[in-house]
Amino acid sequence: MDLVAELKKITAEDRVSTNETVLDRHSQDESYHQPSRPDVVVFPLNTQEVSDILRFANQQRIPVVPFGLGTSLEGHVIPYHKGITIDFSMMNKVLEVRPDDFLVTVQPGVTRSQLNKELKKYGLFFSVDPGADATLGGMAATNASGTTSVRYGVMRDQVRDMEVVLADGTVIHTGNKAAKSSSGYHLNGLFVGSEGTLGCITELTLRVYGIPEHIMAARASFPTLDQAVQAVIGILSAGIPVARVELVDEQSVRQVNQFSGTSYKEAPTLFLEFHGNEDGLKQDVAFTKELVFEMGCDDIQFETDTTGRNRLWEARHNLAYAYVHSFPGKKIMVTDVCVPISELAGAIRRAREVVTESGLNGGILGHVGDGNYHVVLMIDRQDPEEMRKAEQVNEHIVEDALARGGTCTGEHGVGVGKKKYQEREHGPAVQVMASIKQALDPNNILNPTKIVDIDRQK
Amino acid sequence: MDLVAELKKITAEDRVSTNETVLDRHSQDESYHQPSRPDVVVFPLNTQEVSDILRFANQQRIPVVPFGLGTSLEGHVIPYHKGITIDFSMMNKVLEVRPDDFLVTVQPGVTRSQLNKELKKYGLFFSVDPGADATLGGMAATNASGTTSVRYGVMRDQVRDMEVVLADGTVIHTGNKAAKSSSGYHLNGLFVGSEGTLGCITELTLRVYGIPEHIMAARASFPTLDQAVQAVIGILSAGIPVARVELVDEQSVRQVNQFSGTSYKEAPTLFLEFHGNEDGLKQDVAFTKELVFEMGCDDIQFETDTTGRNRLWEARHNLAYAYVHSFPGKKIMVTDVCVPISELAGAIRRAREVVTESGLNGGILGHVGDGNYHVVLMIDRQDPEEMRKAEQVNEHIVEDALARGGTCTGEHGVGVGKKKYQEREHGPAVQVMASIKQALDPNNILNPTKIVDIDRQK
Ligand SMILES: Cc1cc2nc3c(=O)[nH]c(=O)nc-3n(C[C@H](O)[C@H](O)[C@H](O)COP(=O)(O)OP(=O)(O)OC[C@H]3O[C@@H](n4cnc5c(N)ncnc54)[C@H](O)[C@@H]3O)c2cc1C
Ligand SMILES: Cc1cc2nc3c(=O)[nH]c(=O)nc-3n(C[C@H](O)[C@H](O)[C@H](O)COP(=O)(O)OP(=O)(O)OC[C@H]3O[C@@H](n4cnc5c(N)ncnc54)[C@H](O)[C@@H]3O)c2cc1C
Repeated sequence: MDLVAELKKITAEDRVSTNETVLDRHSQDESYHQPSRPDVVVFPLNTQEVSDILRFANQQRIPVVPFGLGTSLEGHVIPYHKGITIDFSMMNKVLEVRPDDFLVTVQPGVTRSQLNKELKKYGLFFSVDPGADATLGGMAATNASGTTSVRYGVMRDQVRDMEVVLADGTVIHTGNKAAKSSSGYHLNGLFVGSEGTLGCITELTLRVYGIPEHIMAARASFPTLDQAVQAVIGILSAGIPVARVELVDEQSVRQVNQFSGTSYKEAPTLFLEFHGNEDGLKQDVAFTKELVFEMGCDDIQFETDTTGRNRLWEARHNLAYAYVHSFPGKKIMVTDVCVPISELAGAIRRAREVVTESGLNGGILGHVGDGNYHVVLMIDRQDPEEMRKAEQVNEHIVEDALARGGTCTGEHGVGVGKKKYQEREHGPAVQVMASIKQALDPNNILNPTKIVDIDRQK
Repeated sequence: MDLVAELKKITAEDRVSTNETVLDRHSQDESYHQPSRPDVVVFPLNTQEVSDILRFANQQRIPVVPFGLGTSLEGHVIPYHKGITIDFSMMNKVLEVRPDDFLVTVQPGVTRSQLNKELKKYGLFFSVDPGADATLGGMAATNASGTTSVRYGVMRDQVRDMEVVLADGTVIHTGNKAAKSSSGYHLNGLFVGSEGTLGCITELTLRVYGIPEHIMAARASFPTLDQAVQAVIGILSAGIPVARVELVDEQSVRQVNQFSGTSYKEAPTLFLEFHGNEDGLKQDVAFTKELVFEMGCDDIQFETDTTGRNRLWEARHNLAYAYVHSFPGKKIMVTDVCVPISELAGAIRRAREVVTESGLNGGILGHVGDGNYHVVLMIDRQDPEEMRKAEQVNEHIVEDALARGGTCTGEHGVGVGKKKYQEREHGPAVQVMASIKQALDPNNILNPTKIVDIDRQK
């Protein structure tokens, strides 16, 4: 059987590639995980093609890896079993905006910046914003989240309906367009975060929000990381509906300044944002100011105009890239645990110790309003000692988070990097996940060996 | 095999019952569905007992129906296949309150009013409030929601973790205590809304909220139902973060007045509530007032003190009971569709027509901020003609909602009453649900024939 010829029959001559550069581009993500090439990359245009590809692959027992933009950080998209990579970049249309319903329907290859550009015309925005400009399909598949999740929720909270192609080519819908439903099992929730292991997402209906009437952003710096974290707990306990609250440590502010040309004070800092009506927002901001000074804040700067605010969030979004560019030749490993907020200060203190003990260089930052923080380590994949140390840091941090009632991954997902922690985190629930995988993809063709293992059938 | 003796061995002499009154109490819910008795009712005290009961029932292929308070409305708890009913009313402890984390851990038999009484000591509240004083286990199992869901979300949004006993007695956890996670498949979401068909919930960790700094409630009445609905759309489009917005039609206000001794104006009315800081709330309320008058509101009354506010929401909560008490001997059928908000006015207009055509007497009310509305019909189960007409009204309303992109049940769930619509609503996704059920409960002992069918094994 000629795989390439078959795929060309299903799609088109020029949408199936075995070009070296294309294979390389699909052999890796943006992280430290070892690359491995697929046999072939196919670029479908519509659901029918995706269904035909899967039916064919399922009959032939060929592994299939869905691919958005490859910005994930745990080796999710790396086809360790070769086979077909389905690249969704040509399914990139915004299909429908329904402003009265605060809904939008998109193809999976639409990126968040593309979507927000379109939504702006309607005075709307899409709330989830991972640091990278990812696709909505990839974001749903990893249950991505970001700076605004403390206020607007994670990717799973935004998904009303998806069209999904199952392993055997069957096309289903996972939800509907109503704001809530108690009908049947919650397939929206199951397919969100399934990392391409249960089906290919070919359409998404997502919740969007009105651009807030008033927005205000601020930077609050503190003598110590600990005080910054305590301030976050104070803000949340006071019930202030903060829209963003990001922790950036001293070293990371330095990276920001170098990369983005800003001159922010190099100290443990909270980047904050408030959304609301004018009067409510003023009261929130005044109360926050009082609170952070009580917690030892030594400087708070407000970004009063749109330019300053945009600069602030662009700098924050570029932070991981800032690290990447500062360490040419090295690869990025980002821990991603999330803990109950009352455990956050202790967890970050412990993380700092672990990094120091390892002798590695690591910045700390995070979506601390959710209890989610990252240690950024730049490592040389060719240096086994450095790799071992970094793995150990990651492991200690995960162990610590689990002991605190948290999770090994707050937003990046499992892929291959967090697979070894699944048993420890979920215990016998891993078996439930495996039976679901077995039931929905009995031939284990969909992104095999990611998240959970089932015995591969011949 | 002596079923009762076995269960007594697992639990205790006085916690296994075949008393007629107890069997009757567990043979029905609060709705029009035909009753049917279990063989025996057991009252476990802890997870170990639940696990032992399920392991035993699974070995013997005995059907098991979990039971909270039996307030569900679609025949969920009726043991049509006889067997064991597990009544969770003795597992009713609030286990832990973590104010800093805005979390509480409870046993499944805790009721929402019991929980709120406990939380009040900490300045906290639990947001989901179905009309009945249901158990948290039952509310999770049906994905309940209510008046505040427009602001705080549905039951599924509050569940961080559950301890669940599977069909074979295995005990798992479905989540963790962190605010977000991308680790593994989303079992929280899957088990919430599974109506006892996938496992028994023995513990829940739930998100709670700080009691708002300021609360204001209001009643706004309109010449027509249509104008009231348009006003809701206006409020939502303006981005006002309304905490409650309930529609009550003229007939239902009359029921409220009769049952609760109020003297609210008998016209289509919105019951509203706002939460926030003082200044923000004032601005929200002023803006809402402007908007509703633009939409034709002819009277708005504010409930300025706690007593008036409590009276308002108590009256709203008692509305279904008001109907029940006014029609002695009759049973309640409540439609429960949910549609995209832009379709709500049309859907309610159509519902009114359908009810009028049927010649039945039906009130309309609903959580309209979510696009969820109910037609309340009081019917005589002994009168086949009335039953037929009521079924037909229900069917027309469901068909209409599905055509509008909505769902057959916004909050009550499937049980037996909405089962016939599952295929129409979910299409081939029903097969996915069936394979999940098959994978997790291969002997089909857990609440069999509710939600989905799989072939019962012998
Ligand atoms: C600098 C940087 C910062 C980041 N910051 C964040 C952050 O703040 N928050 C966060 O959550 N993540 C963050 N990430 C990780 C990454 O951006 C997210 O995981 C993102 O959701 C991946 O989207 P993608 O389109 O690149 O998907 P890919 O990487 O291409 O794929 C991710 C997974 O989704 C699957 N998939 C992709 N498309 C589909 C589809 N159509 N159907 C089914 N499965 C599909 C793939 O098989 C894979 O398992 C960051 C990454 C970088 C490089
Ligand atoms: C007057 C009135 C008003 C109502 N208003 C609303 C409303 O506004 N919103 C709304 O959502 N609902 C409403 N309902 C319906 C009902 O209150 C909800 O469905 C509620 O969630 C049921 O809770 P319960 O404890 O009575 O559960 P039950 O009725 O006992 O059980 C419901 C389902 O959950 C399962 N179950 C119960 N406990 C467990 C457990 N521990 N583990 C696994 N499965 C379990 C049962 O098997 C059954 O399938 C109303 C009902 C009435 C009578």
